[in-house]
Amino acid sequence: MTTKSIVSITDYTKDQIIGILDSAAAFEVNPNQEILKGKVAATLFFEPSTRTRLSFETAVNRLGGRIIGFSDASTTSSTKGETLNDTIRIVSNYADIIIMRHYLEGAALYASEVSPVPIINAGDGSNQHPSQTLLDLYSIRKTQGRLDNLKIAMVGDLKYGRTVHSLLMALTHFSPELFFIAPEELKMPDQYKLVCQQTGMPYTELSEFSTDIINEVDILYMTRVQKERFTDVMEYDKVKNVYTLRKSMLAGSKENLRILHPLPRVNEIDPDVDASPKAYYFEQARNGLYTRQAMICNALGLI
Amino acid sequence: MTTKSIVSITDYTKDQIIGILDSAAAFEVNPNQEILKGKVAATLFFEPSTRTRLSFETAVNRLGGRIIGFSDASTTSSTKGETLNDTIRIVSNYADIIIMRHYLEGAALYASEVSPVPIINAGDGSNQHPSQTLLDLYSIRKTQGRLDNLKIAMVGDLKYGRTVHSLLMALTHFSPELFFIAPEELKMPDQYKLVCQQTGMPYTELSEFSTDIINEVDILYMTRVQKERFTDVMEYDKVKNVYTLRKSMLAGSKENLRILHPLPRVNEIDPDVDASPKAYYFEQARNGLYTRQAMICNALGLI
Amino acid sequence: MTTKSIVSITDYTKDQIIGILDSAAAFEVNPNQEILKGKVAATLFFEPSTRTRLSFETAVNRLGGRIIGFSDASTTSSTKGETLNDTIRIVSNYADIIIMRHYLEGAALYASEVSPVPIINAGDGSNQHPSQTLLDLYSIRKTQGRLDNLKIAMVGDLKYGRTVHSLLMALTHFSPELFFIAPEELKMPDQYKLVCQQTGMPYTELSEFSTDIINEVDILYMTRVQKERFTDVMEYDKVKNVYTLRKSMLAGSKENLRILHPLPRVNEIDPDVDASPKAYYFEQARNGLYTRQAMICNALGLI
Repeated sequence: MTTKSIVSITDYTKDQIIGILDSAAAFEVNPNQEILKGKVAATLFFEPSTRTRLSFETAVNRLGGRIIGFSDASTTSSTKGETLNDTIRIVSNYADIIIMRHYLEGAALYASEVSPVPIINAGDGSNQHPSQTLLDLYSIRKTQGRLDNLKIAMVGDLKYGRTVHSLLMALTHFSPELFFIAPEELKMPDQYKLVCQQTGMPYTELSEFSTDIINEVDILYMTRVQKERFTDVMEYDKVKNVYTLRKSMLAGSKENLRILHPLPRVNEIDPDVDASPKAYYFEQARNGLYTRQAMICNALGLI
Repeated sequence: MTTKSIVSITDYTKDQIIGILDSAAAFEVNPNQEILKGKVAATLFFEPSTRTRLSFETAVNRLGGRIIGFSDASTTSSTKGETLNDTIRIVSNYADIIIMRHYLEGAALYASEVSPVPIINAGDGSNQHPSQTLLDLYSIRKTQGRLDNLKIAMVGDLKYGRTVHSLLMALTHFSPELFFIAPEELKMPDQYKLVCQQTGMPYTELSEFSTDIINEVDILYMTRVQKERFTDVMEYDKVKNVYTLRKSMLAGSKENLRILHPLPRVNEIDPDVDASPKAYYFEQARNGLYTRQAMICNALGLI
Repeated sequence: MTTKSIVSITDYTKDQIIGILDSAAAFEVNPNQEILKGKVAATLFFEPSTRTRLSFETAVNRLGGRIIGFSDASTTSSTKGETLNDTIRIVSNYADIIIMRHYLEGAALYASEVSPVPIINAGDGSNQHPSQTLLDLYSIRKTQGRLDNLKIAMVGDLKYGRTVHSLLMALTHFSPELFFIAPEELKMPDQYKLVCQQTGMPYTELSEFSTDIINEVDILYMTRVQKERFTDVMEYDKVKNVYTLRKSMLAGSKENLRILHPLPRVNEIDPDVDASPKAYYFEQARNGLYTRQAMICNALGLI
């Protein structure tokens, strides 16, 4: 039994990704098992993230494991000046696995280097969030029947959006055609376009969110456009309505189109889209339960 | 197996209330069971209420279920602008039942309309708190041997007191004689007196809290008189001592009198009452465990 | 089956301490059991202490028990004016045992007097923290092979340090030779030196933290020197570096020397000490899991 920390989606090979998705599919059939009986998982959320925490804690609970942890670091020893090293060393005495979210980039990597038990990164600053990427891939595969050769549009904040960056890295295994739709201020950074070029993923950049693209793609991956990202508020006001998906915009879209969003959404998807069979964001969140069950069991060497 | 949300005590028929109380009595005999094994309950407390949360969480834990949730919404996605609709839709992916407390009236009703899993209202603003009413009824039945034809005095803040309003609605099934004892500012609202008239429940209104009434009734239901309810602080100072129950006031009371209080108390019941066999408020809180076990199992269609 | 609250290490006789340590040793061999199945433990942390809470909650979870509670009292009924008496009376309706931490000295003793279920004091103000003392004793016995006739140095804040006071009281059973190493402002209080005299424990007081002492002792018990204890900041600045243990200072120390610290540490132990086989503070924290399992089971009359 070998254990393995997961800091970034790039810690997995293509085969390992496929393996996790296959395990997740098995957990979807039977999410309640006893595979984690006798195990304790620590959920250390140095930065609050209720949805991610509840998803991980459900994953552990439904597999018979137990939870310890905190949902907010403001009352922990960190505030007494304790180092992350010491916190991780101490908690690893109690827990068999540590699921951590931290406001600093690199925190999970550092923790994985000092921890004797596996670390799962549940988000470190604007850096990595591998469980989100796995549930995105799971949702794509489940709705499209495959991962290869899909047309995928990423819409909204492509500059700061951690989820689209990780998804892009994972997609390098699966020969997609990509469309980057973002306002000028929030364009996909050059480093990721370079990855596309080096791995042979064709991409198109657009600053208009038009039905031409919606009608062409298999997956529409929406992200939140946050006001605080704009230096000019008027620019935000101009952009925010342009980047809102409405039901009427789906009229000419493909039958197999599915709309994803990492959630929470604010204005990016009008509630009138929710009733469409192409809206998949709530089911996508549900898939997080199964992929996280697979990740945890994989990290513990149980599958 | 049909599931059922519980927003208000009026969601239950008289027979259903009796059924819940009978189930609760069975849970009192054997509170530790495995009936919720494999089930996850979410306790979403958008407003803190430690006692209610601990009671529900004990109910789930003693029946073998697991808990996810939050005790305070200040660190949740609500603060990122997420709608209640989205929060409920997401959490219902993880949990088999949602127990929620919210600071807004109507929140639980709305949640029950969008949720695919049953919702139990653990208090929405100053509106409803049905599990409190059930534990009150359970406590009355257990101490008096019956629910019908009892003399019940409600004392204190009858204007804003959510618990007395819900209890009054439930008592319409059981032909009580009611006594409303409140300062002028905190009288029972007309709408509830109208309910009494329409359902044939005789009632007497009093602004004096005297031993005459204490000596006559079977149940003395005390409530907290909160300073912040008064526009005139001098009025509060006058009232607060008048509405304090002391042991000496119980000298001529009936043998079967029992004193209830939804707790927390502040000044309304002097600690010297605690040792009286007629003080029942701590046992009443304990009964909340069994009635909540019954409500949860009923909502899940398990009993 | 008799239950027993534990407020202070002095609630245990010498034989009971030995018994707890023996039970803890058995739990170290097999920490995952079902001995608490069907039991609910309440962790009431009126003052946050993440490490202590996680340790107790792991202890309960690994023995099959369930947890209710709060990690911070700021959102509890205490803020509505509820007395500790009422909180304890209510929670004892739900839980089989209460593990509490409180910011006020004497809170745990008071709670133990009103509670029908056993109370374990997880720290009350600057007063008592018996589970810390037991894990200290466990760590000493495990690393030295015995508790009797050891040379033990206590270093740092000996005036306000709750842990060193409790440890000193427990050591009265085991004939140690003690060394108190502290700056003038933070000397061991007279009352504890009186205990040493009355129980025949020789002690030496020093204000210099020198290798002479390090080379002589079996146990070096380091504590945190907190800036806020000093009225004169310059005095703190002078002291803080003098009381830092560095790897180079261990060169002439005994083979069996072990370094303990209740954690969190800030500056008292340089990270370069961590790799030394004489550094034992992280293992010491782990021992807290086993000793707390033993304490809980002892308090519930299960062992």
